[in-house]
Amino acid sequence: MQWAVIMAGGNGMRFWPLSSDAHPKQFLKLIGDRSPARCCLDRLKRFIAPERILIVASELHRQALEDDLPDFPTDQVLWEPIGRNTAPCIAWACETIRQRDPEAIIGVFPSDHDITDEKAFVSCARAAYKMASGHIVLFGIEPTRPETGYGYIETGAEIKSKHQAYEVASFREKPDSKTAQQYIDEGRFLWNSGMFIFDAQTMHEELELHVPKILSGIEDILSGDRTVEEAFCRLTSISIDYAVMEHTKRARVIRARFPWDDLGTWESIARYYERDQDGNAASGRVVIADSKNVFVMNKTPRVVGVLGLKDITVVSSEDGILVMDSSCSQDVRQLAIVVRFLGPAKSEKKRNDEKSS
Amino acid sequence: MQWAVIMAGGNGMRFWPLSSDAHPKQFLKLIGDRSPARCCLDRLKRFIAPERILIVASELHRQALEDDLPDFPTDQVLWEPIGRNTAPCIAWACETIRQRDPEAIIGVFPSDHDITDEKAFVSCARAAYKMASGHIVLFGIEPTRPETGYGYIETGAEIKSKHQAYEVASFREKPDSKTAQQYIDEGRFLWNSGMFIFDAQTMHEELELHVPKILSGIEDILSGDRTVEEAFCRLTSISIDYAVMEHTKRARVIRARFPWDDLGTWESIARYYERDQDGNAASGRVVIADSKNVFVMNKTPRVVGVLGLKDITVVSSEDGILVMDSSCSQDVRQLAIVVRFLGPAKSEKKRNDEKSS
Repeated sequence: MQWAVIMAGGNGMRFWPLSSDAHPKQFLKLIGDRSPARCCLDRLKRFIAPERILIVASELHRQALEDDLPDFPTDQVLWEPIGRNTAPCIAWACETIRQRDPEAIIGVFPSDHDITDEKAFVSCARAAYKMASGHIVLFGIEPTRPETGYGYIETGAEIKSKHQAYEVASFREKPDSKTAQQYIDEGRFLWNSGMFIFDAQTMHEELELHVPKILSGIEDILSGDRTVEEAFCRLTSISIDYAVMEHTKRARVIRARFPWDDLGTWESIARYYERDQDGNAASGRVVIADSKNVFVMNKTPRVVGVLGLKDITVVSSEDGILVMDSSCSQDVRQLAIVVRFLGPAKSEKKRNDEKSS
Repeated sequence: MQWAVIMAGGNGMRFWPLSSDAHPKQFLKLIGDRSPARCCLDRLKRFIAPERILIVASELHRQALEDDLPDFPTDQVLWEPIGRNTAPCIAWACETIRQRDPEAIIGVFPSDHDITDEKAFVSCARAAYKMASGHIVLFGIEPTRPETGYGYIETGAEIKSKHQAYEVASFREKPDSKTAQQYIDEGRFLWNSGMFIFDAQTMHEELELHVPKILSGIEDILSGDRTVEEAFCRLTSISIDYAVMEHTKRARVIRARFPWDDLGTWESIARYYERDQDGNAASGRVVIADSKNVFVMNKTPRVVGVLGLKDITVVSSEDGILVMDSSCSQDVRQLAIVVRFLGPAKSEKKRNDEKSS
């Protein structure tokens, strides 16, 4: 049977000051009135039975998930006590499903992607599920710009199928902008979306081959030999790309033609906002004067006033205020780590002071 | 006898979001631990008897003044019901003092100037009080840079005195930067500080000559024929420069050699903060990364994080957030006017929502 796993464990530090340890981006309404996780779930329900959708999420986000997806059965959530990157996450979901349905075909979908053309997505996903027997089928997105923030897949020999699909020639890490432009020009490269489909038995074998310790750690959980906490503490933190994809001989890639974005940075979010004639976009209580290509998101009642700026992003929340050159959105994570070291904003103290004065 | 009048009626819109209608800049601790008004009062007390110091302030700022200067006798404050610029303000103070002391020599001092060398100030002021009989003696500051934000005084023939003093050849409005540089090069020009000393009889005669309606409006208040509110509503809003200085034949200017700043903009405040090796300065909870010549003032518990910026000023308060190119500080007033049209931040509503959720 066909199953889907939503990976919702990210901590979203790159969306400081809107995201926080308790409220990661996948559960925030960054664009429109549904969170990325909600959109992902709704998209999958179009072709997967709801009872065969699992979510892997962090214990830290239990409240955020339940607030955002109140209708989702919590017994279909695997709660990670600590983040160990994608390989342990996928191994746990795969083995959990395989226990119930050894023939399962499983799709893995990060919770924080934006896919507006759901029809094209569903059609592509159906084809991928069909060709997944004995393989790991990646969604390779046709690039629309020389993006330096994504990994790329070099396509090999074409495989006969209704949808265009290929052997995987190689994986390429995030390129510099010159290399990214070459990839676009050569035409053989697709963005590695991080979405893929496999049959449970194939993934089991690949895990056994390439990361046997991770697999046995997961088996300890399922057999009851260790608690989830004990097992996760012992697991190596490693991505599925490094652990399996770059070594397996069973990877294939299907050409996905739908618009796709991984919503990884403020820059990617800003692309969704309509610009005025000066290229400015704002949400919330904002006044912009004498400025160009400015993006301001204000989630507080305090006005943000902007004067004489160019190519600047401002994000204001109750947790903090980010002001940056828009080209720096890849570095927000580093900044957020420093901010975290400063400790919590003493807003409760402040509010109490206000009350008593 | 020698009297002093502190003009503290400004609304400080150029210091949004720190200043507000209720908290203008002259009563805020923008630099160090004393407000500009506190500094001005302390400075004057060095050579003027405290009971001969008056303050003219706005009714709107009654609370702010009493909080900032709790030891100042409120019967020495003239409360303006509405702002009518400096001519009515000075006329009211002058006539009030003249009623009690017809021979009074009166100095007028804006409340928001920064003068670090108090000794040099006191020495210069003493000389000015001495030469004020029959004259209006302006403090002309020796310019230290081709400032375009100030008015200039062209000096005429030198007057024999212990301090260098001159006839006034002309007043020049805020120049463009080329003209400002010429003024510096020519050496005959001094900054018009807005501080001046006169004898009460001379000012009375000049008011009668140039703005008789303002004088009679003030006399209506002192005689009890009209309330302050009624009289002020009828008064023309005009500066003492336009009303009297540019027409009088009795103006003189004393060369003031002490460092002086009118604290008129965020740029002028930022000059007082120590810079790190990248030219950055910050106060409050601030993290600055990969930035140059950035000035950040944060009066809230929420961290301000700054990334990849150059020549940017950020000010964060409970009322709002200003982000601007540092060269735009003259335009903050316009921005603050637009912000005021948006109405108050619904922070109370917001806080109530938080409590109930």
